[in-house]
Amino acid sequence: MGSHNETSSMMNPLEPEEFRRQAHLVVDFIADYYSNIEKYPVCSQVEPGYLTKSMPKSAPLKPEPIETILQDVQKHIIPGITHWQSPGFFGYFQTNASTGNFLGEMLLTGFNTVGFNWLASPAATELEMIVTEWILDLLQLPKSFSFSSNGGGVIHGSTCESFVCTLIAAREKKLKQYGAERGDLCKLVVYCSDQTHFSLQKACQVVGISPNNVRSIQTKKSANFQLSPDALLTAIESDVRAGLIPLYLCLTLGTTPTTAVDPLLILSEIAQRYHIWTHVDAAYAGSACICPEFRHFLDGVEGATSFSFNPHKWFLTTLDCCCLWVKDQTDLTNALSNDPELLKNKASDTKQVVDYKNWQIALSRRFRAMKLWMVLRSYGVIGLQQVIRKHVKLAQRLEAQLSADSNFEVVVPRNFATVCFRVSPLMALTTGSTNEDDLANHLTRTLLESLNETGLVYMTHAVMEGIYVIRVAIGATLTDDKHVNMLWDMIQDHASGLLAKYAEVTPQLN
Amino acid sequence: MGSHNETSSMMNPLEPEEFRRQAHLVVDFIADYYSNIEKYPVCSQVEPGYLTKSMPKSAPLKPEPIETILQDVQKHIIPGITHWQSPGFFGYFQTNASTGNFLGEMLLTGFNTVGFNWLASPAATELEMIVTEWILDLLQLPKSFSFSSNGGGVIHGSTCESFVCTLIAAREKKLKQYGAERGDLCKLVVYCSDQTHFSLQKACQVVGISPNNVRSIQTKKSANFQLSPDALLTAIESDVRAGLIPLYLCLTLGTTPTTAVDPLLILSEIAQRYHIWTHVDAAYAGSACICPEFRHFLDGVEGATSFSFNPHKWFLTTLDCCCLWVKDQTDLTNALSNDPELLKNKASDTKQVVDYKNWQIALSRRFRAMKLWMVLRSYGVIGLQQVIRKHVKLAQRLEAQLSADSNFEVVVPRNFATVCFRVSPLMALTTGSTNEDDLANHLTRTLLESLNETGLVYMTHAVMEGIYVIRVAIGATLTDDKHVNMLWDMIQDHASGLLAKYAEVTPQLN
Repeated sequence: MGSHNETSSMMNPLEPEEFRRQAHLVVDFIADYYSNIEKYPVCSQVEPGYLTKSMPKSAPLKPEPIETILQDVQKHIIPGITHWQSPGFFGYFQTNASTGNFLGEMLLTGFNTVGFNWLASPAATELEMIVTEWILDLLQLPKSFSFSSNGGGVIHGSTCESFVCTLIAAREKKLKQYGAERGDLCKLVVYCSDQTHFSLQKACQVVGISPNNVRSIQTKKSANFQLSPDALLTAIESDVRAGLIPLYLCLTLGTTPTTAVDPLLILSEIAQRYHIWTHVDAAYAGSACICPEFRHFLDGVEGATSFSFNPHKWFLTTLDCCCLWVKDQTDLTNALSNDPELLKNKASDTKQVVDYKNWQIALSRRFRAMKLWMVLRSYGVIGLQQVIRKHVKLAQRLEAQLSADSNFEVVVPRNFATVCFRVSPLMALTTGSTNEDDLANHLTRTLLESLNETGLVYMTHAVMEGIYVIRVAIGATLTDDKHVNMLWDMIQDHASGLLAKYAEVTPQLN
Repeated sequence: MGSHNETSSMMNPLEPEEFRRQAHLVVDFIADYYSNIEKYPVCSQVEPGYLTKSMPKSAPLKPEPIETILQDVQKHIIPGITHWQSPGFFGYFQTNASTGNFLGEMLLTGFNTVGFNWLASPAATELEMIVTEWILDLLQLPKSFSFSSNGGGVIHGSTCESFVCTLIAAREKKLKQYGAERGDLCKLVVYCSDQTHFSLQKACQVVGISPNNVRSIQTKKSANFQLSPDALLTAIESDVRAGLIPLYLCLTLGTTPTTAVDPLLILSEIAQRYHIWTHVDAAYAGSACICPEFRHFLDGVEGATSFSFNPHKWFLTTLDCCCLWVKDQTDLTNALSNDPELLKNKASDTKQVVDYKNWQIALSRRFRAMKLWMVLRSYGVIGLQQVIRKHVKLAQRLEAQLSADSNFEVVVPRNFATVCFRVSPLMALTTGSTNEDDLANHLTRTLLESLNETGLVYMTHAVMEGIYVIRVAIGATLTDDKHVNMLWDMIQDHASGLLAKYAEVTPQLN
């Protein structure tokens, strides 16, 4: 594998001038990528195994020049990328990038600190405290979530990590309170709705709570897929009668299928009555609440024990960045602390500092506060509000267009910038079908496939109460009026063609 | 918070030419940082709360220019950074950066894909499979860890995440095998040594295994702090007799305190006899095993169920990047899969593709394979081996210098590029103390503080069997001969001064 002599002439891998030269090349590569992004099909159209075929079977023995590697990125990697930053990306929820965020990622990667405790990089810890306090203020979260009240914020990698950490905190507190042996873990019950993000189920699995003890309470279209207080109360009372221990309630501000908002106030009051930990998951819609006109969706958050949202969705920040606040930081640190000799230091001993390793799963942690701070400073509150409002306005217009067209049904009222629609079951009915929902589902699925196959746009679907809907999540940074106009034209064209074709092949029913 | 009109003139936050301009500025900022890095004290010397004092209480209302923000990074952030990339950084274990890695982070941040399943970005999934197979090959791991044998590799964020995921996989398999109710969770036992990384304890806590069921088996200096097969067997047999269920054994290749290597072959054979999941944690030293002269440390890994190492330590890759391989991928996917309607797609339905969300905790995942691929191509196997060998050579020389000087004791034989030493207890003895270990500890701690206070170097400590040692982890990318020479000079000077001073204040004992 190469003698020592062959290698002696290699440049230091962090030599500053070579770093400078290569990094400038890559900046231009990425700027060009953004300039050309509309030329690529939004969802990758490669076949499984495409890359394995074009890559060598083993790592190169010798160094390769950056120019060669970038050619391969262009030729082999980009065709296999689903372009989440494309203005035609309306799938899942967006994760919207920005220049400010990118600069933050560059700086944090450049420093490459490991801020597991304060001493390992004081700036990383303190900046995280500062930005989470800034955002607390922007969202007008109650002061009880602030460091000044023994609460505080932390940046996790994902909502699932926030679920896991708050579940463990709740679990340990409850087991301690009951003086219970760990065997009682099987008595703990978690509550959510059937619209709650499926990561909660996984988080429960991780922390040892059986799927049998997760109450995924059914929601209804007639109630806009909100969690019903009556249904929650019924479930809790039934569990208490059965000798089980209610542990944790997850409420959602902006569910993934339809962006439904659970009524926080009344639900958290029920939870408080039973000493249940209430977590509010605002992964998607939390960002919108920095605009005064959306803040009312957060009413009742004061009843929650913890709150999280993902700047890596709609806050101009890239993966990974999930902010979590708790009312009592000792809930987290009692459950997640360890204090090994290796990390002992005077600052930690004085208890004057936050050691974020005790607020999360892993020991090591990236300096993620840097990118959030860069975003907040690069765009300011005004800039971030402007982005939210632009996307909401585009979604409003699309919703109005869909509502005014008898070919379509907007299945649930839009709350934010995601529109859920389907081919109108009435329209399906006029084509002669006897089961309008089945036909509408079939036509809507076909419409989605037909639109996505163009490569100009990409959307995903959801199914609630047996209704198949196309979700249009408007939020990519580059998405503008013209892209949503194009989408609307395409939706109309493809649907007309589809309905005409359907009417043709089923003439006997006309 | 600003009217709509104020905001209408803002540029798109991802406008390519402005992206280009600002990113070029930051490239130069970071290149200059590396050029000047030796001017900063390695470990930050700020006081707790320093940053809060200099930052405004709330986020800025309006956008700020990058030039202003970078001035603040220089003025306020850099003084609060512990410079892990400094050539004088010898603390913990290094996380060594490189230009190739940096370019990979730029590209993955630029694309900002969310590769939870294959479809969401085929290149992200396939490149991860490719690089983990490449490294499998470099490490000469058995083919049973390859995708071609239903095994396979995945990139996690941290060793702790790999612990959690393999513990859950082992837990679910064992509970299923016993047809046990979840109550039997309290019977599962985990084995490790008192040198195992403390993240294992936390991972057990996360997955619901009581600290009482974690056997942290005592190691001895006389056995170089390796886990003893006899002690392991005794612990297992005692648990079996008590009706408990042995679940999981963690072996370490390069422990954090002293880089001890557990004897993999004999220990994994014992584990197999009791159907225990064996995980090999090679977080630090795994990288060294790409050099043939170190590969022997991995002998016996064929007996393991899973294996992990951190490219973000000694493989020119920044946080976060931990590679995990398993022999049977269904162990992970049976325990960690979910299949929500929202993510259903044809590629996943065919089962022809890997959906990495089922190999980890979170749903969302960064395109980390990109940076590992960039590192492998930018430096080649030869370049990576050269880095390892350079650091080992520097450590060998320092070890020899310390061994030859009667003022010092090398406490354990060096295996890789980390040297553990103390002020010689014999030297302490000649100063007249009656408890040589206590005095050696005191002097060694004082020596460490004195060296770190210079700001020229930074090291951390460990304590084993009551012996306090200074750990010199040589592995920062920029560290070169002159830095280790300087360190050696400083160690001699400070120790001489310290011993002379000590002899002065205790003249009555001379």
